[in-house]
Amino acid sequence: MDLALSPLAQPFPDLPQIDGVTIRTAKARYKEWDRCDLTLFELAEGTAVAGVFTKNVCCSSEVETGRDQVRLGRARAVVVNAGNSNAFTGYRGREAVETIMAQVATHFGCPPSEVFVSSTGVIGVPLPKDKAAAGVAAALAAQPVDWLDAARAIGTTDTFEKGAHASAMIGDVKVQLSGIIKGSGMIAPDMATMLGYIATNAAIDPAFLQQMLSRATEGSFNCITVDSDTSTSDTVLLLATGRARNEVLHDWDSPGADAFFAALNEVCLSLAHQVVRDGEGATKFITVRVTGARDDGSAHRVALAIANSPLVKTAIAGEDANWGRVVMAVGKAGEPADRDKLSIAFGGIWVAESGLPVAEQDEAPVAAHLRTDDIRLDVDLGLANGAATVWTCDLTHGYISINADYRS
Amino acid sequence: MDLALSPLAQPFPDLPQIDGVTIRTAKARYKEWDRCDLTLFELAEGTAVAGVFTKNVCCSSEVETGRDQVRLGRARAVVVNAGNSNAFTGYRGREAVETIMAQVATHFGCPPSEVFVSSTGVIGVPLPKDKAAAGVAAALAAQPVDWLDAARAIGTTDTFEKGAHASAMIGDVKVQLSGIIKGSGMIAPDMATMLGYIATNAAIDPAFLQQMLSRATEGSFNCITVDSDTSTSDTVLLLATGRARNEVLHDWDSPGADAFFAALNEVCLSLAHQVVRDGEGATKFITVRVTGARDDGSAHRVALAIANSPLVKTAIAGEDANWGRVVMAVGKAGEPADRDKLSIAFGGIWVAESGLPVAEQDEAPVAAHLRTDDIRLDVDLGLANGAATVWTCDLTHGYISINADYRS
Repeated sequence: MDLALSPLAQPFPDLPQIDGVTIRTAKARYKEWDRCDLTLFELAEGTAVAGVFTKNVCCSSEVETGRDQVRLGRARAVVVNAGNSNAFTGYRGREAVETIMAQVATHFGCPPSEVFVSSTGVIGVPLPKDKAAAGVAAALAAQPVDWLDAARAIGTTDTFEKGAHASAMIGDVKVQLSGIIKGSGMIAPDMATMLGYIATNAAIDPAFLQQMLSRATEGSFNCITVDSDTSTSDTVLLLATGRARNEVLHDWDSPGADAFFAALNEVCLSLAHQVVRDGEGATKFITVRVTGARDDGSAHRVALAIANSPLVKTAIAGEDANWGRVVMAVGKAGEPADRDKLSIAFGGIWVAESGLPVAEQDEAPVAAHLRTDDIRLDVDLGLANGAATVWTCDLTHGYISINADYRS
Repeated sequence: MDLALSPLAQPFPDLPQIDGVTIRTAKARYKEWDRCDLTLFELAEGTAVAGVFTKNVCCSSEVETGRDQVRLGRARAVVVNAGNSNAFTGYRGREAVETIMAQVATHFGCPPSEVFVSSTGVIGVPLPKDKAAAGVAAALAAQPVDWLDAARAIGTTDTFEKGAHASAMIGDVKVQLSGIIKGSGMIAPDMATMLGYIATNAAIDPAFLQQMLSRATEGSFNCITVDSDTSTSDTVLLLATGRARNEVLHDWDSPGADAFFAALNEVCLSLAHQVVRDGEGATKFITVRVTGARDDGSAHRVALAIANSPLVKTAIAGEDANWGRVVMAVGKAGEPADRDKLSIAFGGIWVAESGLPVAEQDEAPVAAHLRTDDIRLDVDLGLANGAATVWTCDLTHGYISINADYRS
């Protein structure tokens, strides 16, 4: 199936090469297609790694293995397969992962635990070991490519390539971050059918790298939802080569840690938003902001109930300021809420305040906002100071078309 | 918007009149339509009542009031408004309900607490008191109608009228149950945008009536989902006039209690299934059965995660035996599950067993089953003996069409 470019697509930014990272791609032909579908990141020795993974209980062997590997904190290579998720494939899936790890480790002369593997695509078909082996061999022999080529090679149902970049000063050393991500459907906290790879030339202690990635994930990848479904394969890896030779960041008190974290946050947020912008069938990007909740966690759960409500999402697709459906979604979240304290705004215009529709409202500015493709929905619960923001997209015929046909 | 008849529609059954129940309808014209949209049930003095209501925190005044009323256990009348839910309308909504209660109570010479009101339709617009008053007056003066007329008058986006009937022997007295329900979207546990009314001529103590309705609801109305969204107005009332003059049922040990409960269960299950069969855009009725869970509650939550997954529902709409998406849905439920013990069947044919696809499977019988409109999905978690069944429908273009256009 050829998918049309998302109307919310953004151009791929100019991503700097990261010293210590070499990217190569190859055609493993995991599906009947003539495109690069295997990506290999070669990383400088001593590269620190952090990772966040799906919380789906039925996760893939890649995820199980990756969770163990990140605890060791070092990465020498990452292999990304597109077109086959290798999930729910039992021991055969596990074997496929271990075979790739061994092959790459032999080539680079590193422990297999430093070779990370990710796969995404159809569930339930073991990754064919012969295709993987040939693909890895081809990639190892290939010329280096740039980030855009990698972004294209890791994609599956994506309609555009997604990348983000930021820099930060650590002492007097400027460090760079470049990241790419794939994902468009089966997107929900925690994580998504998303595979993301962020690399930096900064020198950072692996344990602290993990702390920063986990914290950045809380406010970015864990705050987006397309369809409430959670993939079995989601992975975001953060790779720090240390080639910038800055003073190593060890903890939040290290000079430059805040600056690096801000840059990391910016990259994660941009990548997360781009995944939503490529949400299957999406025609509108929606920011849901909940304030006045009992606490931040409660606000987050209410915001997700709204963002996952099919009735809210179809109303916005229909450019209808149907705040009644928002009330319903707030009420079903199971969090503290008081109908008579609830206020709702579209595009910053309050349409309901303290439990009542705003009287004699001019509907024109609200309608005009809803005709745009960047929708802002504010909900104030009027209880306390808890706040959260999540991002989603509308639910359209495009989603149905894509998902009633995929696979088979 | 004119909605096409659901392809899963069932003919309205022949419902017996219930001694002690008189139904009348009128045109209150809550919307710009020329149809009966106000239904009034007159009940014999001393009629016992039980009720179950939405758990949505932002519920309507009707629901708040009704919850208090059922504790008193007696009903003399029920008024049902269609086209306006009166939800999220603050004190004005409350006034509208109280005005109707007072008007009907004056007519029948009963306490207002014995007059129940339900409303369904658009949220956020106070029920117009003048239209309600004129409608109630017209209904009080109208000729009695039958259950089918009532089923039509309480409907909103329903594409067919829904009713069910059963009988039971209490001692040597045969008692009758007749019930109707409306609802098609915003359907999820607990309850749905559904309003249901079940009447019986049996004599039953109100407290025990409530116990039976609550228990029957657990296995019926709380086990269906169309879109995971939960209404602010859901209500099911069970009315027992006592005119059959059976020995009054007081508790589970009363002779005939089991027989009555079985009949009630049958009516509730039939009504619940009919709501799913009228699910917005539904083309397939889906039974999801989960076994082998840690306990029944866990099985129920896993079953709902499957039944609410947009990716599972679109796969079935596309007649695709995409059990990978089922695995994903099991995994995201957050319940105990082990990928390597999971088995999945479509139409009774196991396609995955103990965590692996069934080898060399003939796909034809599975494909043939998926082409029918009555889909059976079995998931065995292989852990313990917890089991649960839920019912849902597929997710199609029809759902989007209906919900991106409704209101405004």
